Amino acid sequence: MYRFTNDYSEGAHPRILNALNETNLEGNFGYSTDPHCDHARQLVAQAIGNPESAIHFVVGGTQANSTCLCAFLRPHEAAIAPATGHICVHETGAIEATGHKCLAADCGSDGKLTVEALRKVWQAHPDEHMVKPRLVYISNTTETGAVYTTAELEALRKVCDELGLYLYLDGARLGSALAAGGASLKDLAKLCDAFTIGGTKNGALFGEVVCIQNPRLAEDFRYIIKQRGGLLAKGWLLGVQFETLFADGLYEQLGQHANQMALALKEGLQGMGFSFASDSPSNQQFPFLPNALLEKLKGDFHWEVIAKNPDNTTQIRLVTSWATQQEAVDAFLQAVRQHSGV
Amino acid sequence: MYRFTNDYSEGAHPRILNALNETNLEGNFGYSTDPHCDHARQLVAQAIGNPESAIHFVVGGTQANSTCLCAFLRPHEAAIAPATGHICVHETGAIEATGHKCLAADCGSDGKLTVEALRKVWQAHPDEHMVKPRLVYISNTTETGAVYTTAELEALRKVCDELGLYLYLDGARLGSALAAGGASLKDLAKLCDAFTIGGTKNGALFGEVVCIQNPRLAEDFRYIIKQRGGLLAKGWLLGVQFETLFADGLYEQLGQHANQMALALKEGLQGMGFSFASDSPSNQQFPFLPNALLEKLKGDFHWEVIAKNPDNTTQIRLVTSWATQQEAVDAFLQAVRQHSGV
Amino acid sequence: MYRFTNDYSEGAHPRILNALNETNLEGNFGYSTDPHCDHARQLVAQAIGNPESAIHFVVGGTQANSTCLCAFLRPHEAAIAPATGHICVHETGAIEATGHKCLAADCGSDGKLTVEALRKVWQAHPDEHMVKPRLVYISNTTETGAVYTTAELEALRKVCDELGLYLYLDGARLGSALAAGGASLKDLAKLCDAFTIGGTKNGALFGEVVCIQNPRLAEDFRYIIKQRGGLLAKGWLLGVQFETLFADGLYEQLGQHANQMALALKEGLQGMGFSFASDSPSNQQFPFLPNALLEKLKGDFHWEVIAKNPDNTTQIRLVTSWATQQEAVDAFLQAVRQHSGV
Amino acid sequence: MYRFTNDYSEGAHPRILNALNETNLEGNFGYSTDPHCDHARQLVAQAIGNPESAIHFVVGGTQANSTCLCAFLRPHEAAIAPATGHICVHETGAIEATGHKCLAADCGSDGKLTVEALRKVWQAHPDEHMVKPRLVYISNTTETGAVYTTAELEALRKVCDELGLYLYLDGARLGSALAAGGASLKDLAKLCDAFTIGGTKNGALFGEVVCIQNPRLAEDFRYIIKQRGGLLAKGWLLGVQFETLFADGLYEQLGQHANQMALALKEGLQGMGFSFASDSPSNQQFPFLPNALLEKLKGDFHWEVIAKNPDNTTQIRLVTSWATQQEAVDAFLQAVRQHSGV
Repeated sequence: MYRFTNDYSEGAHPRILNALNETNLEGNFGYSTDPHCDHARQLVAQAIGNPESAIHFVVGGTQANSTCLCAFLRPHEAAIAPATGHICVHETGAIEATGHKCLAADCGSDGKLTVEALRKVWQAHPDEHMVKPRLVYISNTTETGAVYTTAELEALRKVCDELGLYLYLDGARLGSALAAGGASLKDLAKLCDAFTIGGTKNGALFGEVVCIQNPRLAEDFRYIIKQRGGLLAKGWLLGVQFETLFADGLYEQLGQHANQMALALKEGLQGMGFSFASDSPSNQQFPFLPNALLEKLKGDFHWEVIAKNPDNTTQIRLVTSWATQQEAVDAFLQAVRQHSGV
Repeated sequence: MYRFTNDYSEGAHPRILNALNETNLEGNFGYSTDPHCDHARQLVAQAIGNPESAIHFVVGGTQANSTCLCAFLRPHEAAIAPATGHICVHETGAIEATGHKCLAADCGSDGKLTVEALRKVWQAHPDEHMVKPRLVYISNTTETGAVYTTAELEALRKVCDELGLYLYLDGARLGSALAAGGASLKDLAKLCDAFTIGGTKNGALFGEVVCIQNPRLAEDFRYIIKQRGGLLAKGWLLGVQFETLFADGLYEQLGQHANQMALALKEGLQGMGFSFASDSPSNQQFPFLPNALLEKLKGDFHWEVIAKNPDNTTQIRLVTSWATQQEAVDAFLQAVRQHSGV
Repeated sequence: MYRFTNDYSEGAHPRILNALNETNLEGNFGYSTDPHCDHARQLVAQAIGNPESAIHFVVGGTQANSTCLCAFLRPHEAAIAPATGHICVHETGAIEATGHKCLAADCGSDGKLTVEALRKVWQAHPDEHMVKPRLVYISNTTETGAVYTTAELEALRKVCDELGLYLYLDGARLGSALAAGGASLKDLAKLCDAFTIGGTKNGALFGEVVCIQNPRLAEDFRYIIKQRGGLLAKGWLLGVQFETLFADGLYEQLGQHANQMALALKEGLQGMGFSFASDSPSNQQFPFLPNALLEKLKGDFHWEVIAKNPDNTTQIRLVTSWATQQEAVDAFLQAVRQHSGV
Repeated sequence: MYRFTNDYSEGAHPRILNALNETNLEGNFGYSTDPHCDHARQLVAQAIGNPESAIHFVVGGTQANSTCLCAFLRPHEAAIAPATGHICVHETGAIEATGHKCLAADCGSDGKLTVEALRKVWQAHPDEHMVKPRLVYISNTTETGAVYTTAELEALRKVCDELGLYLYLDGARLGSALAAGGASLKDLAKLCDAFTIGGTKNGALFGEVVCIQNPRLAEDFRYIIKQRGGLLAKGWLLGVQFETLFADGLYEQLGQHANQMALALKEGLQGMGFSFASDSPSNQQFPFLPNALLEKLKGDFHWEVIAKNPDNTTQIRLVTSWATQQEAVDAFLQAVRQHSGV
C-alpha cells in the first residue's frame, strides 16, 4: 500500500529520530526551558532574520492556532479567514471555543485571501452590535495547496496596517510553501505579526514553532500555552527536533523533496490528460480521476476523496511528504497508465 | 419628529406602566420567585397550550439567545442559522462567546431557513474534525420581516427529528409574527424544543419569555440565567409585565396594531409606485426610496438605512410598533406624496 | 408582613417612577445613545469628579461584574477577592464562565480584603504554571455590611501599584457605604481603576453604573456589554433613572435613610442585649436571635437566615432600604421586646 | 548532576523508544485510528477489566484534565477538588478557562480528599446563586505523594452516588500509586466515572490514557479532544507507546522501580534522622534538610524547593522515576552522610 493520504503518515525523518535517541537519557529541565530549545530558538531566529522574535514550541497545529488567537484577541475581536481556512472548517470550532468568531471571507479554489475579500468583511462590521475584526488568518500553503507570493503578503500587510488588523499566518505546511518559491521565512518575519512553522508535516514526529514578531502579542504567551494544555512536560523533545530541522538546511530540503514528488505526480497525470481542481505548486495535488480508474487503484494506493462529480469522476487529494519515495510515485503513475489505457 | 427607527423607541404600553406603578411598593421576593411571575407563567402556559413547558423570564433578546444556546449545547455542538439570522450577525459574537460556532445557512431576502439549506450545512459536517450541528436557530419574524407558516415549521421540525437537531425559535418580534397569520403560539409549543416570546418590541419596558418544551433542555436553566447575568433581582417586574400582556389578549392586540400601521405604510407607498426589497406582512417594511426624497423627509421622520443603491435610491427600514400612531403614518405618506410629486 | 429580606423587595423610588412615567412616550434612540443617558453620564462624572471617566449603564450587578472582568482581563489573568466576595460565592461562577479564576483571599467576618491577605495570594502565584493575579475585587459595602475607609483603599491602591494589579470596586451597595462615612465617590474615582455604583439596591427599578477611570480598560467596552447581553434596547430607562438619582442628591439621601433604619434596628436590639456577628455601620445587620423568638416573629416579619448555632440561636440578616419605613422598624423592635420579655 | 527534580527529565524507556524506531516508517492513518491505538485500547481495557470503557489517548496531563472536565460538565457545574489538587493550583486556570469553577476542599498534608471535606463543600452550594458541584477530582498519587486505598475510593464513590457527583481520578502518577499498593486498575474502573493513566511520568515520551466508564460522559469525546487541540496527527505514536507499556507488565515494573528508588532515599534519610513533611509511599519524597547541607549538595544534585522554614531547614521534593539509577540514590545518600557528618 502506497499512501498519498496525507503528510503525517510516517514518524520522523531518520536524522530527527536519531537525535531523539541520542538525547533520550541526558536529563533536561522540563517545559522547553532546556538548552535544546534555547538552541532551536537561536537557529529559528537566525533563519527568520529576527533576533527579537518571541519563539515558542507547541505540539500540534490546532493547538498552535487556538493558543495564538486566544492569546492575541480580546473577547469581542474576531478573525477574518478565507472560507476554506483551516480554522473556519477543520478544527471543530477550536477558535469559537476560545470565544472568538471566525469571519469567513470569500475565496477562490486556491484558498487565498484577497485584499478585496478582506475589505468586504471588514466593511460589514462597523459597530459594537457586531464583532470587531482584529486579526487576519491565512495559511501557507493554503488548504488547497496554493502559495502566497511576497507581493501578495505585502498587499495584505498594507491593508492590515490601514485597518488596524494583525496578520497571522498558519505555516502547518510552510516547508512545502518555502520550497515552492513562496515568500521566504525572512519575508514572513517582516510581514506577519505572528506565524507558525510546521514540523509535523515536514519531518518531525510532532511540533510547530510559533514566531511572534509583534511584542504586544508576545506578552505572557507561556501562560496561555500552559492554560490550553500545550506546554509539553518533556519540552526538549521539541527543541531537539527543531534544532535538527534548522541545522544544515534540513527543513528546506524536506520541503523540496515533498514538492518534487508532488510535481512528478502532477506532471505524470497531466501528461496523461487528466485535469486538476487547482494549479498547485506544492505537496498537495487535486486531480480529477475517473471513478472506474480509482476503483482499480484503491487496493494498492490510498488518497482522500474531496468531491464526487456527476460526470463519473472524483476529485481526490494526493499528498506527498519528506517520506514519499520515488518508487511510490512511479508505481502510482504506472498503475494509472495501465488501468486507464493511456 | 416621527420615528420609524425601530420598535423599541418608546417605553411601555400604558396598561403595563400602570401595573408597574400599582405594584411598585407591594413587596416581593426576588429573582422571579414571586406571585406575579407565577401568574404570568400560568397565563403563558395557557396561551401556548402546554402546562409542562418550562417558562422563564429574562431582560433582553441577546441575553435570551445566548442563555438558551449556552444551556442547550455541549462544547462541540453548533447552531445552524440563516446567514442573516440575528445570532450570526447582530449579537457581537454572543454565541461564539459561549464557545459555540454559528453555521450560516444560505437564505434568500426573506431571511428564512429552508429545509434544503439546512440539509446542506448538516451534510458538510460529517465528523469530529468539524463542529457537530445540533440546534437550528430561526427567528420569527425574520430580520427582514418574513413570517413562518405552520407548514414551514412542520417541515423544519421533521428534518430536525431526522437529523437529531433541536429547533429553537427567536421570537423577539413574535407579536408581529402572530398577528401576521404565522404559526400560532400553540403550534410553536408543539414544534419547537424551545422558543422565546418578545416583550421589549411589543409593549413591555423590557423582557422576553423563554418557553422550553424539551425537558432535557430545561434542566438547571435558572443556574445558567444567573451565571450569565440574566436573573433580574426585582424579577417580579417581568412577571407584572407579562401577566398584563397575556391577560385579555393585549399581546396579540399590540402586534396587530403594529402590523396595521406597517401595512398602511406599505400600501401607501405601493400605491405611489415604490417598490420593496421584500414582501413583508409584518411590522418591518423595506422600501426603496429616492435619495432626493429622503433628503426632504429626514428632518421630520427617522428610519434606518439598509443599503444605498447605484440608481440614486436607498433601501430603508420602516418599523412600526404598538406605539406608532395613525397620525405618524398619515404624516409620512402625506410628506412622501408631497415631496415626490406623486 | 414587614420585609427585612433584602434591599430589592420594592420597585423604584417615587421620583424615579415618576420620571419613567413622564418620559414613557417621548421617543428615544436605543442602546443608551439618548440624551437621558448623556445627561446621567454628565451628572455621574460630576459626582465622581472625573470628567474623563468612561461611564456605562447595565441592568444588574452580576452583569456589571462579569462584563467588567471579562473586558479587563486577558485569559490567564485572575481576580483576587476576599473569600466571602460576591464573585467568589454568589454569582454561579459568572467570572469563571468568562474563563477567569477567582483567587479567594483570607478575610475576617467583615469581608474586607487586607493588604496582607492580598500579598499572600499574590506571592503564591509566581510563574506560568499558575494563573497570574491581575485584578483586585472588593465590594463596598462588603457582603457583611462593612465599609472601606479612604485610608484602607489608599493602602490597597498602593499595593496594587506595586504589584501591577487593577483595583475594582463592586458598588452594588455603594449608596449605603457612602452614607456610612466610607470613602467618597471622588475618592473611589481617584483610587480605583474601575468601580460600579449600584442603583438596584438604592432606589432604582434596576441599573448599575460602571465608571472606568483607567483608559486602557475602557477600550471597546460597549462591545463587551453587547456581547454579554447587557446592552439594554431601551437604554434610556437607565439614563432616566440615574439622572434622577444624581440630581439633587437623591442617591445619597436614599442611602442615608436605609442606614438610619438599619442603625435603629441595631441600637434597639443592642439595647435589649442581643449581640451581632459583626459591627456593621450600614444597611445590613447580622444579629444573633434566639430560635424561640424567631419562631414567634416569623408570621409578621421576613429575614434571611445566615447560620443556625448550637446554642439555640440563629444568625439572621436584616436588610433595610430606601423603602423601609420607620413603622416597620418600630413594629419589629416592639415585637422582639414583647416576645422576648426584655 | 543527578536529577531528583521530577519524573519527566528523561525521554522514553528503551523498549518504548525501540518500538517508536521500529514503527517509524510503517505508515499509519492519523488521529489514533490506527492498529497500534486499537491494540493499546484492547490491552488497557483488559488491564482495567472493563471492555466497555471508552479509551482515548492524549499528549499531556493538563490536556487530559481540561478535556475531560470540559466534556463532562455543563456550564454551571463545578469540580470539587482538594485544595492542593493539580487543577486548583498548577494548571494556570485551565479548568476555569473552560468555564468551570474549581471548588477547593480542605485537605491535609497528604493532599487527599476526605468524605467530610467533600460533604462540606457540597452543603455550601445549595441553590442556583452558586455553582452546582457535579464532579469530584482527585489525583493518585496526590500532589504530595499519598496513595488512595480501595476503601477510601469506595467511600468517596458512595458519597458521589448519594449526592449525584461524578468521580474523576487524575492518574498522572498512577504507575507509582499502583506500585505502592493503592487501589488497582480494576478497582478504579469499578469506582470512577473516568480516570487517566499517566504515561509521561512512567516511561513514555509523552501520553496519557483517558478511561471513561460512564457511557453518558463518553459521548462525542473525540470532538472535544479535537476542539481542544489534543488530537495528535500522528496518533499512532501514542498507541505504540501504550501497547509497549501494557504488554508484559512494563507499566507496573516501571512504577515499582521508581518507588524502590524513592523508598531507598526515604529509608536512608530517615536512618540519618531527617524528618519528612508526609509519610509518602510513592515516588515523591518531601524531607526537611538543613540549608547548610543543601548548599553543599546543590552542585551535584537537583531537586525542587517546596518551602523554606524559619529553623534553617528547607522542605524539598525528591522525585524518582523509571530512569532513576541506584547509583544516583547511593551518591545522594553518601553525599548527605558525608556533608552532614551523620
